[in-house]
Amino acid sequence: MKLSELASTLGLEFAGADCEFTGLNTLENATETEVSFLANPKYAHFLPQTRAAAVIVAREFADSVQNALVSENPYFDFARAGALFDRKQGLFQGISPLASVDATAELGEHCTVYPHAYIGPHAHVGKNTEIFAGAYVGEHAVVGENCRILPNAVIMAGIVVGNGCVIKPGAVLGTDGFGYVLVGGEMQKIPQIGTVNIADGVHIGANTCIDKATLGATTVGKNTKIDNLVQLGHNVQVGENCFIISQVGVAGSARIGNRATLAGQVGVAGHLSIGDDVTIGPQSGIAKDIPAGSKGGGSPFMPEQTFMRSMILAPRLPEIFQRVKRLEKELEDLKKLVRNDTKEMP
Amino acid sequence: MKLSELASTLGLEFAGADCEFTGLNTLENATETEVSFLANPKYAHFLPQTRAAAVIVAREFADSVQNALVSENPYFDFARAGALFDRKQGLFQGISPLASVDATAELGEHCTVYPHAYIGPHAHVGKNTEIFAGAYVGEHAVVGENCRILPNAVIMAGIVVGNGCVIKPGAVLGTDGFGYVLVGGEMQKIPQIGTVNIADGVHIGANTCIDKATLGATTVGKNTKIDNLVQLGHNVQVGENCFIISQVGVAGSARIGNRATLAGQVGVAGHLSIGDDVTIGPQSGIAKDIPAGSKGGGSPFMPEQTFMRSMILAPRLPEIFQRVKRLEKELEDLKKLVRNDTKEMP
Amino acid sequence: MKLSELASTLGLEFAGADCEFTGLNTLENATETEVSFLANPKYAHFLPQTRAAAVIVAREFADSVQNALVSENPYFDFARAGALFDRKQGLFQGISPLASVDATAELGEHCTVYPHAYIGPHAHVGKNTEIFAGAYVGEHAVVGENCRILPNAVIMAGIVVGNGCVIKPGAVLGTDGFGYVLVGGEMQKIPQIGTVNIADGVHIGANTCIDKATLGATTVGKNTKIDNLVQLGHNVQVGENCFIISQVGVAGSARIGNRATLAGQVGVAGHLSIGDDVTIGPQSGIAKDIPAGSKGGGSPFMPEQTFMRSMILAPRLPEIFQRVKRLEKELEDLKKLVRNDTKEMP
Repeated sequence: MKLSELASTLGLEFAGADCEFTGLNTLENATETEVSFLANPKYAHFLPQTRAAAVIVAREFADSVQNALVSENPYFDFARAGALFDRKQGLFQGISPLASVDATAELGEHCTVYPHAYIGPHAHVGKNTEIFAGAYVGEHAVVGENCRILPNAVIMAGIVVGNGCVIKPGAVLGTDGFGYVLVGGEMQKIPQIGTVNIADGVHIGANTCIDKATLGATTVGKNTKIDNLVQLGHNVQVGENCFIISQVGVAGSARIGNRATLAGQVGVAGHLSIGDDVTIGPQSGIAKDIPAGSKGGGSPFMPEQTFMRSMILAPRLPEIFQRVKRLEKELEDLKKLVRNDTKEMP
Repeated sequence: MKLSELASTLGLEFAGADCEFTGLNTLENATETEVSFLANPKYAHFLPQTRAAAVIVAREFADSVQNALVSENPYFDFARAGALFDRKQGLFQGISPLASVDATAELGEHCTVYPHAYIGPHAHVGKNTEIFAGAYVGEHAVVGENCRILPNAVIMAGIVVGNGCVIKPGAVLGTDGFGYVLVGGEMQKIPQIGTVNIADGVHIGANTCIDKATLGATTVGKNTKIDNLVQLGHNVQVGENCFIISQVGVAGSARIGNRATLAGQVGVAGHLSIGDDVTIGPQSGIAKDIPAGSKGGGSPFMPEQTFMRSMILAPRLPEIFQRVKRLEKELEDLKKLVRNDTKEMP
Repeated sequence: MKLSELASTLGLEFAGADCEFTGLNTLENATETEVSFLANPKYAHFLPQTRAAAVIVAREFADSVQNALVSENPYFDFARAGALFDRKQGLFQGISPLASVDATAELGEHCTVYPHAYIGPHAHVGKNTEIFAGAYVGEHAVVGENCRILPNAVIMAGIVVGNGCVIKPGAVLGTDGFGYVLVGGEMQKIPQIGTVNIADGVHIGANTCIDKATLGATTVGKNTKIDNLVQLGHNVQVGENCFIISQVGVAGSARIGNRATLAGQVGVAGHLSIGDDVTIGPQSGIAKDIPAGSKGGGSPFMPEQTFMRSMILAPRLPEIFQRVKRLEKELEDLKKLVRNDTKEMP
């Protein structure tokens, strides 16, 4: 492909000398036949040294490179360029005779079912959906159209997955919620008779677990993206266009609004409510409701500025303690001095 | 089913007008044909608005609803009602010809083995146990009676699982413990020649990992419930009736007593001992032994009251620091004043 | 086997009376026919009571036991003894007719492919490598020689795994990195066109996830050992001989040097650089670059001594706050006293 062709495909202005290129890479690692991009101005110092054939840049940086593809959103246009080079995962087509598809399961047109996949009785799989090797779709489960259920993903009985979803390898949707009640010193299981509803366009990370509801449904809203190794407990409600990063844990019945971002390893206690457009920093421990629009982090959760200042002071706690002890001593000395003075006074 | 039938099945007093109902739901979401419950008095404000056909309540709330099923333990009786509506996961029966069962493996009566399950040489599976699709039971492993080994769960060679256990999808029992020793700057593996023993009635969450012991056995005691994505290192000993919530990590050789509760994302360092009846709050980092009966949280672990107070003060650290600085300045000023006074005095 | 044979096999001095033994165990649990070891002097108090047939000990402890195998590195020699008793996981051999191996895949000599394993088009598997049941090797993936790909592990298309690697059950290598860009309020996926390169001798834990790079490769260096349930984001670079303990999360594009140790549940933010020989304590939150050779922990990361002192003071924060309040009051009283004095003075 030529640089000029890429520019016209993406609808970008091309400034420089045309040539062939073979792929994409970072400014640091690109060779003379690769195209790169500058999304974050903090990496602009890589521009002079890059060997890239051309760089997708904002107009202000167009003069800093020999060949420029001028973009208003370089990261997004790089993403669009990437799509031209992206290879679809998996080459198998059709329904493998080594798969187990129950006679009562319904499959839409152009479905792919790999060897060793299991599709249970009365399950429904929409058209163009691919079920990879080792994936499990339980009885009465519903998987929408144009989905990719990757290897060894598990969708338990009765769970509903919308259209255009990606369920990554080893993800588990719809096992029983962790509900028990102590009766006479023994843990008794609370039956979990609810389900899980995954809306359209949701991506669910590898080995992520989403439990089914005790009653009703655990839900994940439209277009929400969930990373690997995340836990969503029973009856959790996640809104639309959320961004839930790896190893987050959300306890039972918590509600998360739309467009919320939970950074890696955040923990959210049960029954809480997190508003729309909230951003929570990594490893935070959320023990109270968070109002819409909040941005911060820590345990307990603090607004961003407070959190930053606390983080700076945390290592100074030993020093603060020393200063308090010195103050106490000096104050005591001063008190004695003052008392002696006053005593001495006639 | 009629409300009166439900009441008599559960042995509860029924007060109100009888009618048919179709299922269970929360106070907030129940329709006119669903039964609900009130377990936590803090949700009593939902009672006046609920549309539920009837509510399982403690006697004190019986007059707050039109139709009441009066219970001494509403949550437990709701659980018992739930059991009437619970549907067993999985409809397959018998031994699938698409499963791989070694000729030397022994299966008890009425076992179910789904397609694509693997049961290795000399493995033993007790009667009525179900091995779901993609599950792996290694050579010489022993799985008890009435167990459910859910899809893609892995039980490695020689591991022992008791009766009535549930091993959820993707759980991995008995891979080698993470034991290495640095010899001449290179990591050398310590052979892990022990095993894992899971007692009767244990539930193990989806994608949870329990490593086998270096020597002897990693053990989980009777009736203990373990949530999803938990890690138990080699030689960990967990007692009976424990409750280990999602994403907890317990490092090698730690011991946890009976009836302990570890909330989500807790980390326990290696070789520690946590006593009976201990309750540890979410995200706590345990670096010292915890005596029996303790209740608290934090990193380091603090008794509950101290932890609560620390949590309140943590965001005030910047303010505390400012107050210390002001004290220092004011004390300095006062010292000068006093020194001038004393000097001035004749 | 006789004690004298074990000593000569390991090249150790044997002091005591010879006899047969049957296995290895801890000092605490060993029976009269088992050999034990003392690696950590803090457990020396177990020596007098142990029933072990013999103990692998440093010379200084040789007189404390009846039968001693004298070693300069007892833990390593115990490991070597353990290797004599270690049983290889899995007894299956050959290529199962129940496996799915694409006609275009290339398998080296003496490979083992269990039932229900999937090997895609143009994949390459080196000699002596074992692919267990339910494992998935995508198209164009390359797996080296003498590897063990354990049950239900997933190696996506194009991923490269070196020689002598162990990929534990449920591990997922090479799903798309978690890259999205908000365009007009909607999450748009960034194509992930890179790969994952795993060097020789790497062990990867059960249910661990390593994402493929957006561009280029996510890499894990020679001999590095990674525990269970770890997350490595896209474009992460991990050095050689590292030791990454369970539930660690490393965000996109972070770099970790050689011989680094990350303890359990550590989180590392994106784009950071962690130097060679760094040791990070459990649950630490790393938000800044860490220079080579650093040792410490906490959130934020502190040198070990500071961290220890902070940990001791954290539960004393309420007390510190009380002391600050008392200081303020006493200073105020003193000021009044001094002011009155000075006023009273003529």
